[in-house]
Amino acid sequence: MRRRLVRPGIYQKVEVGFLQELYSIISDPQRIKTEGIAEKYVTDNLGRLQGTCDALVFPVSTEEVSGVMKWAYANSVQVTPRGAGTNLVGSTVPEHGGIVLDLSLMNRIVELDEDTLTVTVEPGVLLADLQAYVEARGLFYPPDPGEKQATIGGNISTNAGGMRAVKYGVTRDYVRGLTAVLPSGEVIHTGGKVVKDSSGLSLKHLLIGSEGTLGIITECVLKLIPKPAFVMGALVPFDSLKTGIDAVIRLIHENVGPTAIEFMERKVVALGERFMGVSFPYPEASAYILLSFDGNSEGEVRSNAERARQSVVRSGALDFLLLEDKETLDEVWKVRGALVKAVEAVSEQEPVDIVVPINKTADFIAYANKVEQESGVQLISFGHAGDGNVHLCVVRGERDAEAWRKDLKAVMSRIYGKSHELGGLTSGEHGIGLSKKPYFQKATDPAVIAAMKQIKDALDDRHILNTGKIF
Amino acid sequence: MRRRLVRPGIYQKVEVGFLQELYSIISDPQRIKTEGIAEKYVTDNLGRLQGTCDALVFPVSTEEVSGVMKWAYANSVQVTPRGAGTNLVGSTVPEHGGIVLDLSLMNRIVELDEDTLTVTVEPGVLLADLQAYVEARGLFYPPDPGEKQATIGGNISTNAGGMRAVKYGVTRDYVRGLTAVLPSGEVIHTGGKVVKDSSGLSLKHLLIGSEGTLGIITECVLKLIPKPAFVMGALVPFDSLKTGIDAVIRLIHENVGPTAIEFMERKVVALGERFMGVSFPYPEASAYILLSFDGNSEGEVRSNAERARQSVVRSGALDFLLLEDKETLDEVWKVRGALVKAVEAVSEQEPVDIVVPINKTADFIAYANKVEQESGVQLISFGHAGDGNVHLCVVRGERDAEAWRKDLKAVMSRIYGKSHELGGLTSGEHGIGLSKKPYFQKATDPAVIAAMKQIKDALDDRHILNTGKIF
Repeated sequence: MRRRLVRPGIYQKVEVGFLQELYSIISDPQRIKTEGIAEKYVTDNLGRLQGTCDALVFPVSTEEVSGVMKWAYANSVQVTPRGAGTNLVGSTVPEHGGIVLDLSLMNRIVELDEDTLTVTVEPGVLLADLQAYVEARGLFYPPDPGEKQATIGGNISTNAGGMRAVKYGVTRDYVRGLTAVLPSGEVIHTGGKVVKDSSGLSLKHLLIGSEGTLGIITECVLKLIPKPAFVMGALVPFDSLKTGIDAVIRLIHENVGPTAIEFMERKVVALGERFMGVSFPYPEASAYILLSFDGNSEGEVRSNAERARQSVVRSGALDFLLLEDKETLDEVWKVRGALVKAVEAVSEQEPVDIVVPINKTADFIAYANKVEQESGVQLISFGHAGDGNVHLCVVRGERDAEAWRKDLKAVMSRIYGKSHELGGLTSGEHGIGLSKKPYFQKATDPAVIAAMKQIKDALDDRHILNTGKIF
Repeated sequence: MRRRLVRPGIYQKVEVGFLQELYSIISDPQRIKTEGIAEKYVTDNLGRLQGTCDALVFPVSTEEVSGVMKWAYANSVQVTPRGAGTNLVGSTVPEHGGIVLDLSLMNRIVELDEDTLTVTVEPGVLLADLQAYVEARGLFYPPDPGEKQATIGGNISTNAGGMRAVKYGVTRDYVRGLTAVLPSGEVIHTGGKVVKDSSGLSLKHLLIGSEGTLGIITECVLKLIPKPAFVMGALVPFDSLKTGIDAVIRLIHENVGPTAIEFMERKVVALGERFMGVSFPYPEASAYILLSFDGNSEGEVRSNAERARQSVVRSGALDFLLLEDKETLDEVWKVRGALVKAVEAVSEQEPVDIVVPINKTADFIAYANKVEQESGVQLISFGHAGDGNVHLCVVRGERDAEAWRKDLKAVMSRIYGKSHELGGLTSGEHGIGLSKKPYFQKATDPAVIAAMKQIKDALDDRHILNTGKIF
């Protein structure tokens, strides 16, 4: 590997003539665009942050990605990888120009290996497509982030979480092996189809959640499980969110293995109802807990649901509405899934996905409600009660740009400060990217940030890969 | 952080006078030993590799560890951390002299937090003590490596696996947060009591399995689960190991959630029987699969065991002996647990813990049997059929030192070569340390090793922490 002493941060602008070499790496000139590049390629799903892009490249193989990176390394060109661009924190924004590397054409399902219960995919495969593919074959990929049009590469890069994390864990727990291209263009293989791995430093786990700052994932071996045969849900109304959250903590001790434990305050349910044209029972409830259960035997699932019922009723639930038929269950989950969109239908919002120790969830939300009252900025919360991962929509309303910037900053400071004080972290599943950098920086030990930077410097000595994200 | 340009590899010998500063860091002079240091402190559990040690230090707090590392960093003194010294690959051998840092006095259980289902412990707590502590309180720490006298810090440093990995995963999956001292002496906190974490590069996951090469773990937040109320086992004899392993692959597809799936060939069971003074049924079987099941309801556990019975009988099991009473179950597991000692009672042996994709387990063992026949070196295999993690004892027998060195090298080359060819890795749970370095080096992409070294260089620029291990 060549290592020239070029100061990081000085990047070559990619002029048209300069691109000639790239045409020998990317076989089809159609897959290099230098003009008429759509705006979505220089931003993320929220579109608030914008970068610039000299050339948009669509590689179709690990070799092409490696070729591009070798070229970029040699020439000090900045590269920003992206999948479907569903990111919410600016991780895909090409802040320093250069090349945007769109991996969406690398969307093949390479191999389903039923013996080892693994599926090998390229990073551009969409979550929805992967889920459909494996479920049609009696298998199951448990991670279930709300955004199904995200790519698997993107899910891995942010260590996406989702609804089923309570029982099944997060994306990290389903990555068995990764092929990745390092900033130097070197290709590495980490992990594999094996289950256990104590063979040196875990580059795999370092890459997971690194938001494309250390390497570009070009192939993923994912763990599958047999598809659970029975699924059931329950909607549990409470007269206060605090009672609901306390009930969840007791429920987790009952060992009834819920797949998902979500909470929704009444005010967000009201938006969801309006948005989806449905209505929830118990409109007088101030909060709902939404549960689901799955398993391979109906008896086991029913028995778990019944034990859950007994537990939450003891803890003060107003009712326990079993959702047995798939249609009702799907409808309720659709409302849950549409909450962000329901909020956005009313106003621009800034998403927060802090995570606190599960027994601090109610304290955090109480604090958010206090901030809402004191600041006049509407804060809508819902999320994963089973793991303390709270989604908070900070609602812009009618504010002009200046007022919004000021109010948002003030609210965010308080919110992230509180999360930190409660032993929480900045992000449970969205990542840090650009937009959460200041809060992450403030909430995190300088020694931790310094160590992260040292690792970045070590693997990307020219700072050419997605520079400026996270730290 | 000071960073002087000292060439890594040039270490200061710790003379007595030079230690004065250390006495101001470690409050009690009794906790610094420079004379009469027992031999166990310069080796590992196998005692085959030996280092040297100028001073043995027993810190009692993160602050003391930090103080020692700052001093060592400033003076370019090599530091080798250790727990109970049960390591099998030389990770605790102080190859470059200097300080041995024994963390066994840091053995407090700091906090049990039942709300978040976490226990916070110092790294010197023994696995056996942790298991007993939480189980007495109705809770459960699932990782279950064979060696119960290992420390939790050691378990994390090798990402120890164990019997229950099939259902519950490995040590990595139960580490929520870590406090660690970096080679510079800086203290970092990563993770916490939170369940999800997408907040920057995962230093936590990088430290797990790093064998004390990147930092010294000084506090661990571990995930617990409620203790399963029912446990049951089954001993399943087969007429060939291949039939047994194929049955396991089918069994995993049945979704009956076994806690453990172990395999034992007849020849190792015979040693275990003799060693423990018991006898297994079906002495004519050439292999056994040992299963266990647990859960919170007896009906569920029984139903899973019954479905497992049907599955393995369909796959050609000779019988399915349900182990219902705890005594019989414990006795059979004791034999399984004593296999290494049973082998060692007969001869010195070199342990292998390769991991292959689960459907390659039978191929790997068939190859090991072939190597045994061709080389005349006895190879005894058993291990974790549910995750492809094969333990192989390479038996010395009556060989003199020279013949043993030669034969061992030849056998190991073939064994590790085959594992690599089958898509396997060098270690599933023991780590690489010193003794597996040559095989790891040979089986691993140079780019992967280079990236690991870059990370090591970045976090330990003076190479003062457990230098020479892994890579």
